[in-house]
Amino acid sequence: MRPQGELALLRQIRSRAAHAPGLSLRLGIGDDCALLRPLPQEELAVTTDLSIAGRHFRLDWHPAESVGHRALARGLSDLAAMGARPVAAFLSLGLPRELTTSAARRKTWVQRFLDGLLALAAVHKTPLAGGDLSESFIPFADIVLIGSVPRGRALLRSTARPGHLLYVTGSLGGSAAALARLAQLAEAQPAGSNPPRIPKKLASVLAPHLYPQPRIAQGFMLQRRRLASAAIDLSDGLSTDLTHICEESGVAAEVDAALLPIHPAADLAQALNGGEDYELLFTAPPTVRLPRTIARVKITKIGRIVPARRNLPAVTIITTQGSQPLQPQGWEHFS
Amino acid sequence: MRPQGELALLRQIRSRAAHAPGLSLRLGIGDDCALLRPLPQEELAVTTDLSIAGRHFRLDWHPAESVGHRALARGLSDLAAMGARPVAAFLSLGLPRELTTSAARRKTWVQRFLDGLLALAAVHKTPLAGGDLSESFIPFADIVLIGSVPRGRALLRSTARPGHLLYVTGSLGGSAAALARLAQLAEAQPAGSNPPRIPKKLASVLAPHLYPQPRIAQGFMLQRRRLASAAIDLSDGLSTDLTHICEESGVAAEVDAALLPIHPAADLAQALNGGEDYELLFTAPPTVRLPRTIARVKITKIGRIVPARRNLPAVTIITTQGSQPLQPQGWEHFS
Repeated sequence: MRPQGELALLRQIRSRAAHAPGLSLRLGIGDDCALLRPLPQEELAVTTDLSIAGRHFRLDWHPAESVGHRALARGLSDLAAMGARPVAAFLSLGLPRELTTSAARRKTWVQRFLDGLLALAAVHKTPLAGGDLSESFIPFADIVLIGSVPRGRALLRSTARPGHLLYVTGSLGGSAAALARLAQLAEAQPAGSNPPRIPKKLASVLAPHLYPQPRIAQGFMLQRRRLASAAIDLSDGLSTDLTHICEESGVAAEVDAALLPIHPAADLAQALNGGEDYELLFTAPPTVRLPRTIARVKITKIGRIVPARRNLPAVTIITTQGSQPLQPQGWEHFS
Repeated sequence: MRPQGELALLRQIRSRAAHAPGLSLRLGIGDDCALLRPLPQEELAVTTDLSIAGRHFRLDWHPAESVGHRALARGLSDLAAMGARPVAAFLSLGLPRELTTSAARRKTWVQRFLDGLLALAAVHKTPLAGGDLSESFIPFADIVLIGSVPRGRALLRSTARPGHLLYVTGSLGGSAAALARLAQLAEAQPAGSNPPRIPKKLASVLAPHLYPQPRIAQGFMLQRRRLASAAIDLSDGLSTDLTHICEESGVAAEVDAALLPIHPAADLAQALNGGEDYELLFTAPPTVRLPRTIARVKITKIGRIVPARRNLPAVTIITTQGSQPLQPQGWEHFS
């Protein structure tokens, strides 16, 4: 077993995160703070997202690479929802000692976690610019993403207006369906063991949950071409995230069930409430012509924004049986 | 008992963090990201700091207000070390459910934690601009601080040069001495209980540990008047933090034991290795005349920077018995 001191682990992260300071990131890991120099005429978007064992992932279900990927994806997806380009990521990591040790020549859990995180960071050209590290009884990560967007141009939750149409990127419910499949695999093996070996033919089935793709290119295009009037990312599920848009904008919304781009492996409930799809949900005035795809991801109209109605739920779903209220079913902590 | 849902707790934090968006903070809590608009000619300093129960604080030793104060102080102190002014704070909080509930009419632990954090934030005019919240088996906080500093003017660890003199603000070892006193009080009561009631006459004795004051005004002045050539904050202790300056600057340092401003309650070992004093350690060329105090905090010369010596420890301490190497004794996780 090779235990790693904090300094050794820090040194390793620092060398793996090494990069040429760019226009925006002037100073990365190694001082009291990182230094960012935003471009003139840009503002910075900042978001933080927790990933805690037993809440956001399970050590006996999720491969370490997936935990790292998903932690970063949550933050990148928040930037995508604002139409921002990533500038830098910061990682605060609490780890039990056993996740920093391994049998000879095998990668440690934290090395594999960083493999997953840094691979996604490379795709989106996001330098790891700092963070913190501590021993912890349970493993968790807090990821901070900083992005850049032209002044006054960020996509907000609060700017949807009655008459605007409602759209999503990609398909819905794929993550929830994949999670259900992952749970089956995990429960078929002895309790408390390592994550299940994933058969090759299942890798693509599980990908929507294990390796979700944040819609950075799509959000950036919606912002740059002024296509969207409001946006949010689908982290908690359509029913909950659409309610957030309605509350922040002071409007209501109608969703056409028949229009929903349900993932082939998913059912309607998973598409409405599943969460963790990390697609974008956005609105646009009816005068805006949207492309069918942005950067090879499908855009689908799913409903419309209507005036808020006193004492009625913000979101209504319209099916062949008529219309009914859609309560936010996203999962709430501490409830 | 009043359990609080995540949304209710978020709403409460949001209303307590309410502020008029300023020049730099355009959008706070309530969207996917906060938006910052840095002033032209400024760059942003970013730092993240973990506070984990059992590592950085103890539920049975530290009052909740102190845990909140200390979490924010760690981040503010990093900004102080760069000479930056605070722009915004972000708080990611993992909490066991019992810390979000209370007997009727009594404040919950998390409310008292926020009391401590927001009181210090108010002193330094730092808006709470966002964060994340989740149930967690052990309580922890990750605090992100963003500060602003004129371009190219941030105080770094890497710019100390041989011949420069070495200074500290305030006094050293007070936090370690207070922690030892707190441990005595805590251990005199039944195991696993609440933090000890602190007798009034002990409040000022324990303050250096429970309510350390980040040296924002002092760091800002050192930067603005170009007094310092390099700086770091004393979070891990003089022996460790001075070694960081030496390593990043490629130099060595000599400390005169007789010059150290040891806190009246502390001994030499606590002053050298105690940590958590959150004073500033900085260097300045010998041509620079430093004031005796900055914003009512004493400035003391404690040694000098010398050329690095191959195979010798970076820091030497000079006493009446001669000079000897000073190993970094700051505490390392995972070791």
